[in-house]
Amino acid sequence: MPEVSFEITTADRPAFEKILASSGFFYDFEIEVALSLADETLAQGEEKSGYYWVRLLEEGEVIGFATFGPNPSSVHSWDIYWLAVQQEHRSKHYGSVILKETENRIRSVGGKIAWIETSGRPLYEPTRHFYLKNDYELEATLREFYGPGDPKLVYRKVL
Amino acid sequence: MPEVSFEITTADRPAFEKILASSGFFYDFEIEVALSLADETLAQGEEKSGYYWVRLLEEGEVIGFATFGPNPSSVHSWDIYWLAVQQEHRSKHYGSVILKETENRIRSVGGKIAWIETSGRPLYEPTRHFYLKNDYELEATLREFYGPGDPKLVYRKVL
Repeated sequence: MPEVSFEITTADRPAFEKILASSGFFYDFEIEVALSLADETLAQGEEKSGYYWVRLLEEGEVIGFATFGPNPSSVHSWDIYWLAVQQEHRSKHYGSVILKETENRIRSVGGKIAWIETSGRPLYEPTRHFYLKNDYELEATLREFYGPGDPKLVYRKVL
Repeated sequence: MPEVSFEITTADRPAFEKILASSGFFYDFEIEVALSLADETLAQGEEKSGYYWVRLLEEGEVIGFATFGPNPSSVHSWDIYWLAVQQEHRSKHYGSVILKETENRIRSVGGKIAWIETSGRPLYEPTRHFYLKNDYELEATLREFYGPGDPKLVYRKVL
């Protein structure tokens, strides 16, 4: 079984980039945003930056990760911003392992509800299936949020 | 009739603070967030900062304002972050004037859909009534988002 870690290091930046690019789900500018969150966390720490991390490692190599943090306008809601697994390690349920560890970490620091957003486009059907399988409920559909014919779906899980 | 302006100046900071404090709707830390958006806009300009403003002035004094900006993950959605009118100028429909000018400004720079979020708590009943009166539709209710018994309501208007 791969190892779980809640810390990140400067060496993770290229690993995160590789993982996100391998998924085929993200635009370059989105990958840049994810990496800038890692930079902020490395500079300021998780509490000050507001970004928390779970890494999954196999033989010292990062093969998946999640980024999440407390919603600043809520007393108990946490947002899960990113969750990705290296392409060649798909179909091993590592995504569910990372999500479970993310939920445990949120609970351990006092969070009560986890929120995840994704697109309603066909490309994201596996993503939506993954959330439902992990007991997230579809809480809202924001019509045309991202663009024409591209709604934002909001998923919710009480931890 | 009061005057409308799309620019802000360093002199607006205390005016915005006074207006937000007068409303009784915002916590101190929320007011700090609004002022930090003004600081960012003053330092970087509206496009780079991502924050756009409408001010309403009467005899040179700012009596209300709105802050809004393009949602970075959408091609056409804009978020309205803040809208407030000085307490002694309430009941003059200035809120609707500011909102209308905000919508015009969003449309003029290519935005298609405006989104506003608020709380489902009783305190915000006038706020919710104000959005509905201005042709916003309740698009989603995120249960317990802000806290126990405190849902986030998401309003939407196609411009």
